[in-house]
Amino acid sequence: MHAVLLTGHGGPEKLIHVTDAPVPDCASDEVLLEITACGLNNTDIWVREGAYGTDDDPGAISTWRRGRSTLVFPRIQGADIVGRIVRTGAKIASSRIGERVLVDGSIYNRNDDSLADIDYIGHGRDGGYAEYVAVPAEQAHCIRTKMTDAELATFWCAYHTGEQMLERASLQAGERVLITGASGGVGSGLIQLSRARGAIPYAVVSEGKQDAVRKIGAEAVIIRGRGDFRQEVEKATRGAPIDVVADLVAGPLFGTLLNMLRPEGRYTTAGAIAGPVVTLDLRTIYLKQLQLNGSSQGTRAAFRRVIDLIEADRLRPLLAKTYPLSRIHDAQAYFMAKKFVGKIVIIPDSKYAPFAEASHSA
Amino acid sequence: MHAVLLTGHGGPEKLIHVTDAPVPDCASDEVLLEITACGLNNTDIWVREGAYGTDDDPGAISTWRRGRSTLVFPRIQGADIVGRIVRTGAKIASSRIGERVLVDGSIYNRNDDSLADIDYIGHGRDGGYAEYVAVPAEQAHCIRTKMTDAELATFWCAYHTGEQMLERASLQAGERVLITGASGGVGSGLIQLSRARGAIPYAVVSEGKQDAVRKIGAEAVIIRGRGDFRQEVEKATRGAPIDVVADLVAGPLFGTLLNMLRPEGRYTTAGAIAGPVVTLDLRTIYLKQLQLNGSSQGTRAAFRRVIDLIEADRLRPLLAKTYPLSRIHDAQAYFMAKKFVGKIVIIPDSKYAPFAEASHSA
Repeated sequence: MHAVLLTGHGGPEKLIHVTDAPVPDCASDEVLLEITACGLNNTDIWVREGAYGTDDDPGAISTWRRGRSTLVFPRIQGADIVGRIVRTGAKIASSRIGERVLVDGSIYNRNDDSLADIDYIGHGRDGGYAEYVAVPAEQAHCIRTKMTDAELATFWCAYHTGEQMLERASLQAGERVLITGASGGVGSGLIQLSRARGAIPYAVVSEGKQDAVRKIGAEAVIIRGRGDFRQEVEKATRGAPIDVVADLVAGPLFGTLLNMLRPEGRYTTAGAIAGPVVTLDLRTIYLKQLQLNGSSQGTRAAFRRVIDLIEADRLRPLLAKTYPLSRIHDAQAYFMAKKFVGKIVIIPDSKYAPFAEASHSA
Repeated sequence: MHAVLLTGHGGPEKLIHVTDAPVPDCASDEVLLEITACGLNNTDIWVREGAYGTDDDPGAISTWRRGRSTLVFPRIQGADIVGRIVRTGAKIASSRIGERVLVDGSIYNRNDDSLADIDYIGHGRDGGYAEYVAVPAEQAHCIRTKMTDAELATFWCAYHTGEQMLERASLQAGERVLITGASGGVGSGLIQLSRARGAIPYAVVSEGKQDAVRKIGAEAVIIRGRGDFRQEVEKATRGAPIDVVADLVAGPLFGTLLNMLRPEGRYTTAGAIAGPVVTLDLRTIYLKQLQLNGSSQGTRAAFRRVIDLIEADRLRPLLAKTYPLSRIHDAQAYFMAKKFVGKIVIIPDSKYAPFAEASHSA
């Protein structure tokens, strides 16, 4: 089959498109999918670069699980998988063949709600930048929606992560949540998921993206780099306090974000695109009784809530652009330039013709 | 009356012992206490120094509530008050006169469980470094115990703060908690309060204090500055994971403490004696699903639990040394040198004779 192999830590050249990868085996509790779409994530890039540091050396080359790495090369990345079941393992009803499924890309490694030992498809095992993938049958969710497969491939990583971030911070109806990186995958998910909870999202984005985030539910928009950040937020909320900060940016903004939280406010993060190594004044968190939550991915229950929202037509997919699998380098370059809103989705070349035509006619 | 006045931010010279301070008035919902003992806290020192920084400038002179300061000079500090009721406000039954009471030094400013607007006696109003003090009647807790007044004055700030720290981190029976600064007031409180919850406390102290913390319940002791910290902790727990870090030290140790937490572990702090401005790698908190809690003081319910433990004889007072009020400078110098375990308590000079004799005979 066609696939993109990650052959080591490094630049884009470590991603190699091949046409002769073996179709994966399907274990007894798994299903084999013919892949129709697979969304691209920051994690793909950061794992390729080995950008996770270690406990002792923030600059060290390491991968997503740090000292407990399950990454072996070559690896097929890609966690946001949509496809159709074409084969079932021995323990799985063959009546499932033909189902259109959205994959929960988590590898839970445990049967309770703990996320202490999680991993994900495309890291601990091969993922979706290919024509076929085998996944645990219980994580291939048959889904009823009018969305296209490419649209469906925008949800798993971003919305599962976002829903868990908000759950960790106990975001309640009526509360104000300040969302940084709000035009990205997780960020735009956070806007919609906050609204689904009845909370009031304020979006921090770079210039040019304000209309897009307003359209999906941002109450007001703060343009990064324009004016005094704190004053701009206060203007946006008309002086009302921020209950929760959902941060995907961090870097030099981190301290300001904590300062903006009301006493007893909560900070929640799942990534830090402007730099994860920050300065923290512990007095700010103890004098203001703050809580900081870090989270990655989410529980089975959190993804169940996302699926329910999709089926209830309460989430809008934000599909920015599609690329054929063979153009993964172009896709990642476009992705890393961050000049779009929402998600980039990869389509196997054999299924790309309708997208190519759509691009031509656009 | 005799009292020590804090006359401004600065060194010990800002504390002036006077003999002609007016006895305070007693409002209708208050009681007037004849003070018998008042414990010393880090907060006294840090407020005197103005060592709380501001949102924008960690080095700025500011006080405990930062931008919302209620400190005016001259102020009588002292929050850990024990005494006897000698007068009652108009709304309070005069039958309370004569009660021996332990004061909850909080100023809650709200009637619910929120700590968003708290302050404390000795900061937002005059406190216990004096012969008399007026306090809200409902916070003067009549208490049944064989402990002496000086022993009772070791509890409020340290144990109220410690109990709230553990509550924020949801420390459960059977969990392992690593306590830094474990020989101090809050630290030694945390050891005993962890045991009261059925948890297993590991104490980090400096050389020479290991026996004292073992005696009050530490499962094992890690000497700060001896060997590799992480290895020493692993040796102490025999490789078992740390569920909760209760930190009062921070500074250069902060990152290591987070690295030692198990996935889904919790960090809780109420002070940072080795330096509050630290470096945080957000990847550590999101990859490991950590939670960081800052807290100051505690809820009414938390102090109720402390009182219940005192009355059930489940907490041992750690009274390191007493000083007469007129020797507050000596008391603070001794306190800041940190060569003791537990608490320093100030006694009005007129009541100090028995302590002076005890010192002589010791």
